[in-house]
Amino acid sequence: MSPARLSANSAAAKIKAGELSSEALVQACLDRVSEREPEIRAWSWLDADAALAQARACDRAVGPKGLLHGVPIGVKDVIDTADMPTAYGSAIYKGYRPRADAACVSLARAAGAVILGKTETAEFASIHPAATRNPLAPAHTPGGSSSGSAAAVADFMVPLALGTQTGGSTIRPAAFCGVVGYKPSFNRVNRAGLKFSAESFDTIGFFARSVDDIALLAHVMSGQERLGDAGLREDKAPRIGLCRTSRWSQASSQMREVIESAAQKLAAAGADVELVALTPAFEQLHEAHAVIMQYEAARATAWEYRVHGDLLSPAYHQRMRAGLAIPHERYEAALRQAESGRQDFADVWGELDVLITPSAVDEAPLGLENTGDAVFNRIWTLLGVPCVHLPFGTGTAGLPLGLQVVGRRQGDVATLTCARWIEDRL
Amino acid sequence: MSPARLSANSAAAKIKAGELSSEALVQACLDRVSEREPEIRAWSWLDADAALAQARACDRAVGPKGLLHGVPIGVKDVIDTADMPTAYGSAIYKGYRPRADAACVSLARAAGAVILGKTETAEFASIHPAATRNPLAPAHTPGGSSSGSAAAVADFMVPLALGTQTGGSTIRPAAFCGVVGYKPSFNRVNRAGLKFSAESFDTIGFFARSVDDIALLAHVMSGQERLGDAGLREDKAPRIGLCRTSRWSQASSQMREVIESAAQKLAAAGADVELVALTPAFEQLHEAHAVIMQYEAARATAWEYRVHGDLLSPAYHQRMRAGLAIPHERYEAALRQAESGRQDFADVWGELDVLITPSAVDEAPLGLENTGDAVFNRIWTLLGVPCVHLPFGTGTAGLPLGLQVVGRRQGDVATLTCARWIEDRL
Repeated sequence: MSPARLSANSAAAKIKAGELSSEALVQACLDRVSEREPEIRAWSWLDADAALAQARACDRAVGPKGLLHGVPIGVKDVIDTADMPTAYGSAIYKGYRPRADAACVSLARAAGAVILGKTETAEFASIHPAATRNPLAPAHTPGGSSSGSAAAVADFMVPLALGTQTGGSTIRPAAFCGVVGYKPSFNRVNRAGLKFSAESFDTIGFFARSVDDIALLAHVMSGQERLGDAGLREDKAPRIGLCRTSRWSQASSQMREVIESAAQKLAAAGADVELVALTPAFEQLHEAHAVIMQYEAARATAWEYRVHGDLLSPAYHQRMRAGLAIPHERYEAALRQAESGRQDFADVWGELDVLITPSAVDEAPLGLENTGDAVFNRIWTLLGVPCVHLPFGTGTAGLPLGLQVVGRRQGDVATLTCARWIEDRL
Repeated sequence: MSPARLSANSAAAKIKAGELSSEALVQACLDRVSEREPEIRAWSWLDADAALAQARACDRAVGPKGLLHGVPIGVKDVIDTADMPTAYGSAIYKGYRPRADAACVSLARAAGAVILGKTETAEFASIHPAATRNPLAPAHTPGGSSSGSAAAVADFMVPLALGTQTGGSTIRPAAFCGVVGYKPSFNRVNRAGLKFSAESFDTIGFFARSVDDIALLAHVMSGQERLGDAGLREDKAPRIGLCRTSRWSQASSQMREVIESAAQKLAAAGADVELVALTPAFEQLHEAHAVIMQYEAARATAWEYRVHGDLLSPAYHQRMRAGLAIPHERYEAALRQAESGRQDFADVWGELDVLITPSAVDEAPLGLENTGDAVFNRIWTLLGVPCVHLPFGTGTAGLPLGLQVVGRRQGDVATLTCARWIEDRL
């Protein structure tokens, strides 16, 4: 088996044990990139020699080694890197080289990671799509805005990648590409050096091919507990709420079936599963999300709009105009709704450990001009709660389906623990 | 009178009416800078020719004009500017020129403002002081970390300036320099392009010489209502809570006297004034603030610490070490305390419009090595509520005292309205 197919945990363990060099691992990833990238277009910047030089430096290093020592990671191109160009998915920033690494990149490097390259993103992590194709079916979108990170991990080009989510930009591409995606609670991953879209929602998320790899990266970034450190794996079966949300009818019948079937399978495996309904107030959070996102995004890229408007896509122009037209009072009202929603959500839980709910309306749609609908992501992003996408089942187009595991705010370790329990049983 | 002494509102009105050119106004400010800067050192970067070129472009402009057309503003040097170096108060960034303007700078320019230059800041808006001196007594600190912005406005070098507050970095220097300072609610001024210190608290704030000027700038930045637009000036007398906080004994006797005397004067002018006590839980927010600030700051500057540690001050190294030593669980617990505090604070209000409380422990202390104590600022920053400093009275060293007006979260217009009522009567 090519080392490119190893999990991050296995690769790190083999490197630590001297059974694998970082150079061999990175070379295997680069070989996969060489083979597949002309079709998939996951990378906005990748310099093989620079990546190998980082890997050789890891192999030469003496002294204590970090938890990601020698392990390559992809970085969404809305996150700054001091040694690689960072274009935010926009022609305005073509060739731009930031002065500093973003905090999350620096923390990954401090743990020994090799930054393999920058992954494609929709323009300013918004809606104008990247050129990336779904590695499982290149005529289909990989989802967005973290298109390249999802595709690169799904296609075994890299075991880990960083993305972001403001609406559904981590969970949806994870779903469309069939990998594990994680949008942490607010305040888990420092955002210094992230190009802001809507600061009330922008969250740095991760892509991997297992929950254990996600948990490793989360530990590196935040210091939160790793899974298994405290016998969590052997915990009793979780109490799961099946949450259809007010938008259940927008999910395809095959998506609804896969969620119901996952619920049955988990119940059969010993989980307590019950239906959970959200109050009608949560439905209003869709509108509040749109108002806050558009209001803030229109201000965050005020310079780009004023000085380089000719280089923005028509779709971005439309978003800017919509955002600038929102009266401050409406934005304030939406902030109040969001705050109430966060307080009300605490009452949903009772004895439950996690909710399960769709990650997307269906498998990845055909075509590259649209990255899909965030209808099953927005309110969780607004609530600031942890979300994990787990692949499960296949749709009629042969593309992956799956479910979203949603936890309590700041209950990330418990959520990942339940997600791993679910992953093991699906 | 020199145009440098005009308020922003007056200057904008005169420019609009053709009674004053932006060039004449900017030249007057530059003359003041020439005269005073060798002693005060408020500016980290100022190019007179570039400022005059902006002013002349305003004077030549045809078509509709923004609310700040031709009015100069100073920008704290932790806020990015595309046409001026931005050093974040650190030798690491000497000569660094960002690619883009921060959102707040671009919004000011869109309203016609002239960016006069960059104002001195403590290293990464933390504690290692800038070289700035208090314009009222150059052997005394101007406060920090927004040292240059406070000093420049106080010294009539510029009518408006942008600062930031993570602990007390806007309100305290405003107090020490005797100008009006405003730390808005969270989410009022977009933070894209701000160098983060602690993202849970970092707030862009303003300096001016009147509440009306603060309100004008707040309207430009957020679209929030301007004062007087809806007859607010003639509102009935406010209901004011005198809030000594648990740290009252840390205020000097002259500071305590000035607050009590302000309360009496306002009551005599018709305000309802009552004592308001905070529950003991609020005292714990001081510790929660320190934990969150240090944890986040240590991650926000991870790159600087790892790559350029030799260029950080010893004080910053100490903060980094303290922040990196905080376990994630402690940070999480502090976030929960902050969240509870925000909910509990809603119960303090009853029928009150605003609180008044000290802005600082005393007048500006002697010496430049320490920017003063944020003990009367931290919990309001953590709560995310609007704060306005108003100068009132003079201490034994001949330096200004004053009071802080604190409002409800997102109640910024009401708070500024009350602050103006109070300003008029003090």
